[in-house]
Amino acid sequence: MRVLAKDIKAAAQTGEKTVQAAGWVHRIRELGGVNFVILRDRSGSVQLVLNEKRALTLESVIKVEGEPALNEKAPGGAEIRVSKLECLSLAAADLPYQVNGDVSKIGLEAVLDNRTLSLRNPKIRAIFEVQAAIIEAFSAYLRSNGFTEIKSSKLVGSGTEGGTELFSVDYFDKKVYLAQSPQFYKEVMVASGLERVFEVAPAYRAEKHDTPRHLNEYVSMDVEMGFIESERDLIEIEKGLLAFIFDELNRKHAKEIAMWSDVPAPSAESVSNAPVIPYDEALKIANDEAVKNKKARIFDINPEAEALLCAWSEREKGSALVFVNEFPRRYRPFYTYPLDASRTMSFDALFRGLEITTGGRRQHVYQDFLDVLPKFGLKPEYFSNYITLLKYGCPPHGGFALGCERLTAKILGLSNVKEASLFPRDRKRVVP
Amino acid sequence: MRVLAKDIKAAAQTGEKTVQAAGWVHRIRELGGVNFVILRDRSGSVQLVLNEKRALTLESVIKVEGEPALNEKAPGGAEIRVSKLECLSLAAADLPYQVNGDVSKIGLEAVLDNRTLSLRNPKIRAIFEVQAAIIEAFSAYLRSNGFTEIKSSKLVGSGTEGGTELFSVDYFDKKVYLAQSPQFYKEVMVASGLERVFEVAPAYRAEKHDTPRHLNEYVSMDVEMGFIESERDLIEIEKGLLAFIFDELNRKHAKEIAMWSDVPAPSAESVSNAPVIPYDEALKIANDEAVKNKKARIFDINPEAEALLCAWSEREKGSALVFVNEFPRRYRPFYTYPLDASRTMSFDALFRGLEITTGGRRQHVYQDFLDVLPKFGLKPEYFSNYITLLKYGCPPHGGFALGCERLTAKILGLSNVKEASLFPRDRKRVVP
Repeated sequence: MRVLAKDIKAAAQTGEKTVQAAGWVHRIRELGGVNFVILRDRSGSVQLVLNEKRALTLESVIKVEGEPALNEKAPGGAEIRVSKLECLSLAAADLPYQVNGDVSKIGLEAVLDNRTLSLRNPKIRAIFEVQAAIIEAFSAYLRSNGFTEIKSSKLVGSGTEGGTELFSVDYFDKKVYLAQSPQFYKEVMVASGLERVFEVAPAYRAEKHDTPRHLNEYVSMDVEMGFIESERDLIEIEKGLLAFIFDELNRKHAKEIAMWSDVPAPSAESVSNAPVIPYDEALKIANDEAVKNKKARIFDINPEAEALLCAWSEREKGSALVFVNEFPRRYRPFYTYPLDASRTMSFDALFRGLEITTGGRRQHVYQDFLDVLPKFGLKPEYFSNYITLLKYGCPPHGGFALGCERLTAKILGLSNVKEASLFPRDRKRVVP
Repeated sequence: MRVLAKDIKAAAQTGEKTVQAAGWVHRIRELGGVNFVILRDRSGSVQLVLNEKRALTLESVIKVEGEPALNEKAPGGAEIRVSKLECLSLAAADLPYQVNGDVSKIGLEAVLDNRTLSLRNPKIRAIFEVQAAIIEAFSAYLRSNGFTEIKSSKLVGSGTEGGTELFSVDYFDKKVYLAQSPQFYKEVMVASGLERVFEVAPAYRAEKHDTPRHLNEYVSMDVEMGFIESERDLIEIEKGLLAFIFDELNRKHAKEIAMWSDVPAPSAESVSNAPVIPYDEALKIANDEAVKNKKARIFDINPEAEALLCAWSEREKGSALVFVNEFPRRYRPFYTYPLDASRTMSFDALFRGLEITTGGRRQHVYQDFLDVLPKFGLKPEYFSNYITLLKYGCPPHGGFALGCERLTAKILGLSNVKEASLFPRDRKRVVP
């Protein structure tokens, strides 16, 4: 029976005579005539002591049998004195990427070009262990609050936000598009009577810009709920959701977070204290901060303003998270519910300098929806399914989406969101 | 504070004077001068007693306040005597689909053409409550067995199984394809050291045939694990997984299952008793059954053979589930690990007459992989990333995929897999 690396010390302590272990050859060294191998598996790593020199290469997969022993000098405090070694897969000697190297010294392009190997580095792998825990906590919190998971189609007849940034798909004799978001589908499911739904799925933006905050394919964590009054109900749900995610990460993945960041995920208390600032006031705060930092005037909540607002919130409110609400109508999709003639019931969540969420209440009143279309130069025939939804009984509702890679990157302090995507897609990169 | 329909009886029992409820107008009737409305919400439905006639339409969304009262004649044993009613969204009177109708009397095309409305029917909605529970249980079981969730790209440079049945995407100045499965990516993640991974995500097949068992876009529930000996390790994992899913469904969703099916999901005991039959033997059993049923000879495990094998297993072994393993090489992808010259370490799971899983051990030996390519008319340059994976240390591994819609359909006894897809995509259907 195989024992994982993390459990070898316990096996030594309980006096087991023989254990089996398996994994990758992470390091090899010879010291005073003794051969040491660091064996890496999914749980961590353990030192092997070999009584004879073996023709091993880095990254080979091996299976060993031997006696577990305590050794304070070994990483993790234990080692296996190997009596039997089988090589399951001998790695070629010309390893093109240094798996056991220092990630901070390897450029992002090299990390991504060698993705099938760079993911083996324990520090890089930790990013995706944290990401899996984010998705797990996201889903668990919503389920315990009456939300149902949905899986909607990613092939759509047209975009909900307008057609300019869509990837087209040859679908038999038709053209269809990759969905930018499950917006329409999650609204259908709210109106179907599920009332509260969530989805974790890929979303696509055919944007040409290549920045550290953009991906052309990303994992969208979507939430939608009925019977709300305003975007403030959504902000309350998101606060509870983020507090739960952060708590779970600090509880289960403090080690992985510490591999990347000096600080843990924010506390539940700091999340509940996160300020909610109307757009106009947020713009004023951003400009006051810009003046203090001798920067040019800011005209809208752009990435620079987001960074300034987060720094302000951290300093003044003790929260790395800040919500900006009541966005002017011109910045929001046409279906956003109005607060008054110029403002909408919408919000963004900014976290450690980056927008991680956009959300808002949606228009659910049939006639108001029809009235607003011409103001955006839109025709009712583009929205026939949407219109059916509103025409035949739709509750007041709204929702938001969290960018999974952005949230992962900000929790770990990664400088580029591509680092938080297993196989990132950008304008140039479509492999591996 | 809003009270859900399912909790109105309890509110009446504890003597609450006023409750608020909200939802959709499911039925309206007048009886002896009293107006009754059945209000539907996400939890169920409750009878409202109105003291005056209101201009309500079916499917309108309303909010009411009133006194909860026990009434044995009302559905669920309670009602609300309404003192205040607000209409949040008045549905137009020309409802194009009868939401409160008998689903068994409405054709599939009408159900799908009116998807935004048909999903409101409680029986149809129940399909997706069961599906959400399947995904939840699938994920929970795997996590508790050391599997990590991954999210891989759905845009790939080429297909892993050959290029004939792929949808192409215009990706800036390139052509890419929608992934048929996360096959390569889940293998990368096993070899990355995560060792055990799962993914729940859309998968695409550009197959032209339109049958009750095919979708062009479906939800694939994928599993992959390292350090296995043969496909039998995978079958053991799948048995544990299915037993857990079925138990969870019978525990939490017996009501929803009973809306569709006379029988619950199979018991854990019957799953653990599921026979594992080598291909040649399975073909013989299918032919014996065909003779008994006066049917023509069967030459491979086709849909007819699947149905016969499941009927045989149900009758002889008391299991609705049967595994067929050791498929001949010609029926399996080139990367399937050989058992001998003609057979492979592969399997299918058949459930209630339908294949719900294909899986197997994969070739992990670099040189053997290179040797097998020419036999399938393939060139190494198509597989450069795959080859890197195997060249630099890859454990013996394998995995399988469960079709989410197929499993849902078979648990509920749906006759067409499209019924188990929220927004199904077939050759003709791309809306809503």
